[in-house]
Amino acid sequence: MTTVDIDRLERGRRAFEDVMTFAAPEDSTPATINMLDFVFAEVWQRPMLSRRARRFITLPCVAAADAEGPLRDHVYAALHSEDVTIVEMQETVLHFAVYAGWPKASRFNMVVDEQWERIHRERGVAPPPAPALLPLPTPSDPEARLAVGEQSFKDINCLPYAPLRDNPFQGAGILNFVFGEMWLRPGLGMKERRLVTVACVAFQDAPYPILSHVYAALKSRDVSFDEMDELALHFAAYYGWPKASHLNQVIGEQKLRVSQEWSAEAGAPS
Amino acid sequence: MTTVDIDRLERGRRAFEDVMTFAAPEDSTPATINMLDFVFAEVWQRPMLSRRARRFITLPCVAAADAEGPLRDHVYAALHSEDVTIVEMQETVLHFAVYAGWPKASRFNMVVDEQWERIHRERGVAPPPAPALLPLPTPSDPEARLAVGEQSFKDINCLPYAPLRDNPFQGAGILNFVFGEMWLRPGLGMKERRLVTVACVAFQDAPYPILSHVYAALKSRDVSFDEMDELALHFAAYYGWPKASHLNQVIGEQKLRVSQEWSAEAGAPS
Amino acid sequence: MTTVDIDRLERGRRAFEDVMTFAAPEDSTPATINMLDFVFAEVWQRPMLSRRARRFITLPCVAAADAEGPLRDHVYAALHSEDVTIVEMQETVLHFAVYAGWPKASRFNMVVDEQWERIHRERGVAPPPAPALLPLPTPSDPEARLAVGEQSFKDINCLPYAPLRDNPFQGAGILNFVFGEMWLRPGLGMKERRLVTVACVAFQDAPYPILSHVYAALKSRDVSFDEMDELALHFAAYYGWPKASHLNQVIGEQKLRVSQEWSAEAGAPS
Repeated sequence: MTTVDIDRLERGRRAFEDVMTFAAPEDSTPATINMLDFVFAEVWQRPMLSRRARRFITLPCVAAADAEGPLRDHVYAALHSEDVTIVEMQETVLHFAVYAGWPKASRFNMVVDEQWERIHRERGVAPPPAPALLPLPTPSDPEARLAVGEQSFKDINCLPYAPLRDNPFQGAGILNFVFGEMWLRPGLGMKERRLVTVACVAFQDAPYPILSHVYAALKSRDVSFDEMDELALHFAAYYGWPKASHLNQVIGEQKLRVSQEWSAEAGAPS
Repeated sequence: MTTVDIDRLERGRRAFEDVMTFAAPEDSTPATINMLDFVFAEVWQRPMLSRRARRFITLPCVAAADAEGPLRDHVYAALHSEDVTIVEMQETVLHFAVYAGWPKASRFNMVVDEQWERIHRERGVAPPPAPALLPLPTPSDPEARLAVGEQSFKDINCLPYAPLRDNPFQGAGILNFVFGEMWLRPGLGMKERRLVTVACVAFQDAPYPILSHVYAALKSRDVSFDEMDELALHFAAYYGWPKASHLNQVIGEQKLRVSQEWSAEAGAPS
Repeated sequence: MTTVDIDRLERGRRAFEDVMTFAAPEDSTPATINMLDFVFAEVWQRPMLSRRARRFITLPCVAAADAEGPLRDHVYAALHSEDVTIVEMQETVLHFAVYAGWPKASRFNMVVDEQWERIHRERGVAPPPAPALLPLPTPSDPEARLAVGEQSFKDINCLPYAPLRDNPFQGAGILNFVFGEMWLRPGLGMKERRLVTVACVAFQDAPYPILSHVYAALKSRDVSFDEMDELALHFAAYYGWPKASHLNQVIGEQKLRVSQEWSAEAGAPS
């Protein structure tokens, strides 16, 4: 092994420790060496997206991938580094439940509890008490909730219309719960919700949601063009190149669409 | 080609047409031939699970698999055969949204609308008007909804306890929406919800949900032991052998657990 | 951009063209640049696994990932480069159907037909006629098929026992079809079936199948230890690091187990 190779490996180990807050694996299999060298020493170190922002892309990917070890490690690292608060983490689990399904979220939730306990055990202190659930931040009256859901659907999706109510998926699901309640909960910022959502629609890869959520993240200016390009690379590391290539193509198209809309809006007589 | 082999192929084509309500593909690639011969002429024809019951396993699998053609075909076949009503289909979409994530459900929902339109266009009649969303069947008051959610969580999961409220995933998600509202909607029977749920937890394959939902489906007697064994085979065809193999193992363990509980209950002094 | 950077990018473009048999994408987004630089100029160029062998890992990953563009591109490249014959490709589709489910395989099958047509259209010749399906290579008599399935289950899994017949998943599925017929079809070599299978169990990631198929691939000597380590890296690029980390850990454990068994066998008196 040349000095250059050793330096490079050492650089990978230090990058891993910096991101993960614990020691890098010792084995020298191709997968581990390239993970240290490429994923940690290159991808995580790039500008454009902060380490904190990268957490909100990584967490849904590891929660979706069913790999128990990496999920535990990344939950621990995000909380232990204090990049992500426990309240943000728990809202991430709920947001993930909606966009990736309750069963995987159920495990994610358990791992969050475990790692939060572990961090406090390591620190020799008890975890703080959880905040109370009620009152909910959104109206209880069904008609009022649907009205709130319709407005927030339009605002969040940057669209002039909302779906019809007379369909259980749209009425009881999308308007009543997803946009009438979940997206409006405090405790997780809009930019962070965008990052989690784009990661989820990218691994779920149904054709319309990936378009609409990439579009809305850009159009709302919650995520910049450069940040979104960088998101595609980070996602490639955590969910593989085929889905990332598709995401990257969608991003290219939606950047163009948003740019054209912004030009038209700027040029329009006020 | 021997007469026996030709008969076998012809049998596969007829089975496909019977299930799918349209003509079988003509190509003779290994995948198509074996799909006709094994999936349609064998799996779908087996007793223990009706063709209707098999729809509720197939639909979540094709909706999760993101293969647009098969999704369209199976939605059409389920509605066109009248094995599944439009109300049941739409509730299946909402149930699937919760257990497999909103993005894939969004596409499933679109495909249902398209195929329902298509069936009525073919019949030369207009689709009937959709039923009204409101009033919702569950309480609006947050405290009352949580209480309903806690009770239905216990009933549906066959467990003596419900999760704590002071956690957004559990409180705002599980108790408030999933068990406080979604599972309680009329329009889809409990057995059908069980079939959809078990298929979803089997492809999501997070460790606890697969245990708990297989257990509850058996313990509640909504799905019999023989039906559950048959479900594993049907699932294998639609989501692949590795996840099915895990499901099959879980089923074996949960049948044992439920049998032991039933014996203990039968033997216990009243 | 420095000369070094331009050289590196040019190296990535040439590597892409070599593997994919068509020109590299022109955009300079982070995802594309790093795909050229890391995935094509590094991963695909590494020794230990041939370009042909890497096709049989890549194809199931892109077919599972549902990214239509990458699937089309990799099917085209594998056939156009003549690394994979049409017969091998079609058997790969059938093998994938079993390990990843029929819906995704159905789309994969369609893409294979399209790209095979396209290659012949580009060459200005008609595709050759498909080989006759029948007679099937395996017995038609159900009892004989089950007996063949039991034997091939033991041989392929390197296990002294086969599952019981009295369970639909195991009897009608595993013994009758998967091992009684599918694995025994000619047209795809055992090493290639191992590569496809390990990729599939790695993205499906059910706990036991990943263990048993990594074990059997190594124990049978169809895949060497070094090839398997390299497979984990290739898989990381195509399905993301979290699942690849889990695979890599399983590989480490199974290498140890197989080494110990080989030592015991070598040391045992005959």
